Amino acid sequence: MANITKKVSWSGRADESGATGGEGTPLLNGADQPRLSRQDSLRGRPREIPHNDKLLSLKYESLDYDNIENQLFLEEERRMSYMGFRCLEISRWVVCGLIGFLTGLIACFIDIAVEELAGIKYQVIKENIEKFTEVGGLSISLILWAVINCVFVMMGAIIVAYIEPIAAGSGIPQIKCYLNGVKIPRVVRLKTLVVKVCGVICSVVGGLAVGKEGPMIHSGAVFAAGVSQGRSTSLKRDFKIFEYFRRDTEKRDFVSAGAAAGVSAAFGAPVGGVLFSLEEGASFWNQMLTWRIFFASMISTFTLNFFLSIYHKNPGDLSNPGLINFGRFESDSVAYNLYEIPLFIVMGAIGGLLGALFNILNYWLTIFRIRYVHRPCLQVIEAMLVALVTAAVSFTMIYFSDDCQPLGPDHKEEYPLQLFCADGEYNSMATAFFNTPERSVRSLFHNQPGTYNPLTLGLFTLTYFFLACWTYGLSVSAGVFIPSLLIGAAWGRLFGILLASITNSGSIWADPGKYALIGAAAQLGGIVRMTLSLTVIMVEATGNVTYGLPIMLVLMTAKIVGDYFIEGLYDIHIKLQSVPFLHWEAPATSHWLTAREVMSSPVTCLNRIEKVGTIVDTLSDTSTNHNGFPVVVQIADSDEPPKLCGLILRSQLIVLLKHKVFVELARSRLTQRKLQLKDFRDAYPRFPPIQSIHVSQDERECMMDLTEFMNATPYTIPQETSLPRVFKLFRALGLRHLVVADDANRVVGLVTRKDLARYHQGKHGLEELQLTKT
Amino acid sequence: MANITKKVSWSGRADESGATGGEGTPLLNGADQPRLSRQDSLRGRPREIPHNDKLLSLKYESLDYDNIENQLFLEEERRMSYMGFRCLEISRWVVCGLIGFLTGLIACFIDIAVEELAGIKYQVIKENIEKFTEVGGLSISLILWAVINCVFVMMGAIIVAYIEPIAAGSGIPQIKCYLNGVKIPRVVRLKTLVVKVCGVICSVVGGLAVGKEGPMIHSGAVFAAGVSQGRSTSLKRDFKIFEYFRRDTEKRDFVSAGAAAGVSAAFGAPVGGVLFSLEEGASFWNQMLTWRIFFASMISTFTLNFFLSIYHKNPGDLSNPGLINFGRFESDSVAYNLYEIPLFIVMGAIGGLLGALFNILNYWLTIFRIRYVHRPCLQVIEAMLVALVTAAVSFTMIYFSDDCQPLGPDHKEEYPLQLFCADGEYNSMATAFFNTPERSVRSLFHNQPGTYNPLTLGLFTLTYFFLACWTYGLSVSAGVFIPSLLIGAAWGRLFGILLASITNSGSIWADPGKYALIGAAAQLGGIVRMTLSLTVIMVEATGNVTYGLPIMLVLMTAKIVGDYFIEGLYDIHIKLQSVPFLHWEAPATSHWLTAREVMSSPVTCLNRIEKVGTIVDTLSDTSTNHNGFPVVVQIADSDEPPKLCGLILRSQLIVLLKHKVFVELARSRLTQRKLQLKDFRDAYPRFPPIQSIHVSQDERECMMDLTEFMNATPYTIPQETSLPRVFKLFRALGLRHLVVADDANRVVGLVTRKDLARYHQGKHGLEELQLTKT
Repeated sequence: MANITKKVSWSGRADESGATGGEGTPLLNGADQPRLSRQDSLRGRPREIPHNDKLLSLKYESLDYDNIENQLFLEEERRMSYMGFRCLEISRWVVCGLIGFLTGLIACFIDIAVEELAGIKYQVIKENIEKFTEVGGLSISLILWAVINCVFVMMGAIIVAYIEPIAAGSGIPQIKCYLNGVKIPRVVRLKTLVVKVCGVICSVVGGLAVGKEGPMIHSGAVFAAGVSQGRSTSLKRDFKIFEYFRRDTEKRDFVSAGAAAGVSAAFGAPVGGVLFSLEEGASFWNQMLTWRIFFASMISTFTLNFFLSIYHKNPGDLSNPGLINFGRFESDSVAYNLYEIPLFIVMGAIGGLLGALFNILNYWLTIFRIRYVHRPCLQVIEAMLVALVTAAVSFTMIYFSDDCQPLGPDHKEEYPLQLFCADGEYNSMATAFFNTPERSVRSLFHNQPGTYNPLTLGLFTLTYFFLACWTYGLSVSAGVFIPSLLIGAAWGRLFGILLASITNSGSIWADPGKYALIGAAAQLGGIVRMTLSLTVIMVEATGNVTYGLPIMLVLMTAKIVGDYFIEGLYDIHIKLQSVPFLHWEAPATSHWLTAREVMSSPVTCLNRIEKVGTIVDTLSDTSTNHNGFPVVVQIADSDEPPKLCGLILRSQLIVLLKHKVFVELARSRLTQRKLQLKDFRDAYPRFPPIQSIHVSQDERECMMDLTEFMNATPYTIPQETSLPRVFKLFRALGLRHLVVADDANRVVGLVTRKDLARYHQGKHGLEELQLTKT
Repeated sequence: MANITKKVSWSGRADESGATGGEGTPLLNGADQPRLSRQDSLRGRPREIPHNDKLLSLKYESLDYDNIENQLFLEEERRMSYMGFRCLEISRWVVCGLIGFLTGLIACFIDIAVEELAGIKYQVIKENIEKFTEVGGLSISLILWAVINCVFVMMGAIIVAYIEPIAAGSGIPQIKCYLNGVKIPRVVRLKTLVVKVCGVICSVVGGLAVGKEGPMIHSGAVFAAGVSQGRSTSLKRDFKIFEYFRRDTEKRDFVSAGAAAGVSAAFGAPVGGVLFSLEEGASFWNQMLTWRIFFASMISTFTLNFFLSIYHKNPGDLSNPGLINFGRFESDSVAYNLYEIPLFIVMGAIGGLLGALFNILNYWLTIFRIRYVHRPCLQVIEAMLVALVTAAVSFTMIYFSDDCQPLGPDHKEEYPLQLFCADGEYNSMATAFFNTPERSVRSLFHNQPGTYNPLTLGLFTLTYFFLACWTYGLSVSAGVFIPSLLIGAAWGRLFGILLASITNSGSIWADPGKYALIGAAAQLGGIVRMTLSLTVIMVEATGNVTYGLPIMLVLMTAKIVGDYFIEGLYDIHIKLQSVPFLHWEAPATSHWLTAREVMSSPVTCLNRIEKVGTIVDTLSDTSTNHNGFPVVVQIADSDEPPKLCGLILRSQLIVLLKHKVFVELARSRLTQRKLQLKDFRDAYPRFPPIQSIHVSQDERECMMDLTEFMNATPYTIPQETSLPRVFKLFRALGLRHLVVADDANRVVGLVTRKDLARYHQGKHGLEELQLTKT
């Protein structure tokens, strides 16, 4: 029925389990791995991505979304009064408010910076073009345009490629992984944020086919991770507040709120933001958490609105939220009609097809990049090349276009280019290219029928499609939302115009803006494949629920059609990074697998009272590098095998070793301060490596009592449990280690994320991904 | 720190566990229980509600939202090919589509029936009033009005009180319980649906202060439960389709979709519907499920729209979805301003206060009803009394009102009453009362400033508040959404008018309709206390996201203020029914409780190969009536205590006994058909009682092998697990029984829903509810 490749159990670096490899053969055979130096792999550049989506990397650690309920934790919780919990709850709200505020503020900063810089740029180029249109010598204008773009893009690419490669792209795949429980190194650091913000400004001003919305989500997440911890490791400041939140569970909740606040600021869509967080991240829906996320989203839109209203010299007007605003669609009495529904569905299918094409092209391109474009200087050069080509193509299109439109007295174009048009007219192709993408989308939605001729739209769609596809994955910070919307709006408007000319019935089909909106939704849906949250985002961004129903239909059609060919863009990139990403459910045909087949075994266990030397040796073993160890206890005067009594993490052991919590020392120095939760929290999340901890030969002979520190009630499952059942438990509770015990409560195996993520539903039944070290 | 009443472990009827009572003393002491005959308790009338919210009833069974993975199930799943799973997935979509379609259809039917009947009623009364206004003798009109109302309400009350008491009210509390995992008898039956639909038409036409929207949610859920099972027990038809869906897990998913479709049809809010289902029901967020729910919601709005557009002679116009439509708010450039935000928050606080007052009054009233109004005839009489009083009060208010307004040429009032006003004018108070509540809400939102004078609005708010409060909880099918909106809209508009007169600055404060909207949101939020879903519902119903931000703020303020005094209306009613409802998280200060204290013990276990007589005796024991039993196995040639090897349900044992699956018979009749999953599905969900199964004396000596039928991998926890951890596992996976095992895997206890629902956070720390038999 299903064909499974031979299972190779192998424990690599950052293996979650305390399970020593069954066969011990590294699994670098089969796949033609690019040979990577150890150095490269540590610096975390994109080039280390294995160019094969049938691999699962072992380099990613997991996050612990299940509370570690050891004695210290329980004692603290028991000491806390009801008022204490109320205060905690209030500080959670305060943190969420802060996250929203900061996210709104940064969105405002990005928006204003882009507006101002792009304004200057377009003004300079426009004046230059106008100067040379009459006298000839437009090639000088082209060069000016290209050089300006190149400089901006170069700056953006350099900071990303040399300072913080993780800031490349939209950041949405990374945040998805984080919320899923995979630790992506440096993804929520302050440095990443700074690079991201500067990078996105540079790339948008540099005229690339990118949007500034995706990176907002990442920015919100970074703020969340920073604020909620009450300290910054980069700035070396600890405010000694919110110490309770220094663990993965709490941090994850705040990061969800940050991502939602980012969406909310980007699209003016607070509800869409909440749904985005839930759709991408949450496994367990918790009402209080949802409300806090919602609160953060609200504050974020509100802040952005407030400051933008001041910037736009209309203080106090809060009715135009979001970085992008699709403008108000006129609410006619009949917005659309029943017989248009099939047309919308057809557009959805077209969006799905074009989206799949986009994703396939980008998939090949990404593999090409992984193989050949992995040095930072090459990445910068590629980015500059794209900037050059974008400028040149735009210029050529404008130059050869003869689509002149009358310039009305109330025209909305900010930089109308006359070029070779008659006086009082402007070049319509220039409107589409010579603008920030957000403005182009808006004019495609709202300009009067007849503003664009079909040829202009067709050419624009074609060129922008390939430009956007080439751009995504460059080493610059940028999102794919706006380019997708723009492509879709262009062909959607074209669709509307063609329809009107075919049917010759001007009255109903007259509004090509409506079709532009539907096309934009279809294209975006075809590329990213979110459904529920995207519907709400689109509806909130248009400020009108009238088109809710067609947008839903279109997004769903696009998803169904697109999924037939290839996954969504974010999922492709996650897969290409070999991240052990857990989907919502176990593969359908996996009922015949049980925990026995899935688990890693045998398991490295520790005794409840263990020799320090053994612990140090276990932790130092670089060939395994386990992160969690079942703790067992031998019943006195019995020859039975030891029984499971707890689970302890590498990070906890490190802290214990660092503070030398040894039984012998405790006896001799009775006054010694007892280790507290605070010590673990202070070390979180950057626990030192075992190599940095010095343990003397004498100390190696000491004993360590783990009773107080281990999680005494780890979840266990019997060996016969089916994979879907294991998966459900693991996913619903956000576990990191799941102990497999036999009927006498002896440890027989350990299930970790990679053991579950390894199975996926292929076209020929169940497939098993290969594990890889990089 | 926390003060816990002495724990009394007692196993009553429909106790989930296989645990025999620790002390065995029934717990009817303490609370002054109304003495109820057994007959009453079986007929399920509301009078059996204990009038104390510190009780937890044992009569409610739980639903099994965790798959019972026994050998039969696993074999079936393993036999199924990937295509099989695809087909299942497709049929899930088909079922959801059907649910949406039927829900939309029934919403359409209700709407048209109400419109037509109410139209006739108002026309008759209006003509009568006009006839008598000049000549005197308006008391005859009053009598006519009262009698018409009384007749409708009587019909509605009779069918509810005598035929199906569970159809009373809005049905939302019942659906909340169902989705939470509590089995409410007869809540999703066809008979309930018929009574509900007829009842709601009668009560709305009868002029009660009720809405027809709440019952839609219940109707959707019933359709879902019916369609997804592919058969109707009431109609005795089995279509032999969708047999795979005949278990609690799948049925729950469809019921979520049905509830969402109901919301969607009621308010034209597909996204709001999805959020409602998730906020109230789902514990585990599953993306595929969410999309299906969304699909059902879409189809439902679509169907309703389509048929209503035909009814309104405007076929194909789909832009006015929902049973209630708030009408289109004019999108001014400045919809609201920053300095209005504090005002909105004040309105939210007022809404919270008024909502809390409403809930407190209704709480007392409900307790009064439970004590004194528990016979069906009394319930019918009360309903008629309310109808009379409503008519009389309305009439008096209209009669004594002298608020005359000019009747414009384009007036929207359908039944303008002239009464004592000059020609060309109409009575403004009459507009508020002499209308279906939906229309009244809409005119409060949209009528020109100056349409209502403040006195009219004040009096209207006051009377309608008490009428609505009295009406909710009557034995009629009706919702509380619309009355809440109406009360809020009235005082909101009043607030707006007063504000305009205080500030004297007409231009900005001129639109009292805006304040009516905010007031409506505040009042509804104060009463029902939903936040996220309600925001979306309001936004979708207004068709405008401009007011999204203030609506959110207002709802959140209303919730915070209201929660300070009393819970939401639905929660009050759930609590008064003593339903073992599981909230989102364990009480904050419950970390010092462990599974050892929480669990029921000792547990009645069965052996893997058990004597039929023992099983029959265990099941027949009416003093315990357990629903789940751990299965244990004694290791051969060992004196160790038996070990846990599985879990089996009462319903499974009943099916086994009915089919006489005995070891001896299997040996003698080799050709006997093997018991299949189908046999369990055919019996689902109405398993016969043990008394109806005849087991002869010979058969009692036979043995039954449970190996194939038990769930071989039940979730277990150690005794030291803290209550929050137990709670999280239980809630996240939707469990019904959770086995507590010691370190040698021996059964020491069983945790069920009532063990967890019993603890709640009171004002003086953790409180424990008492268990009661009724």
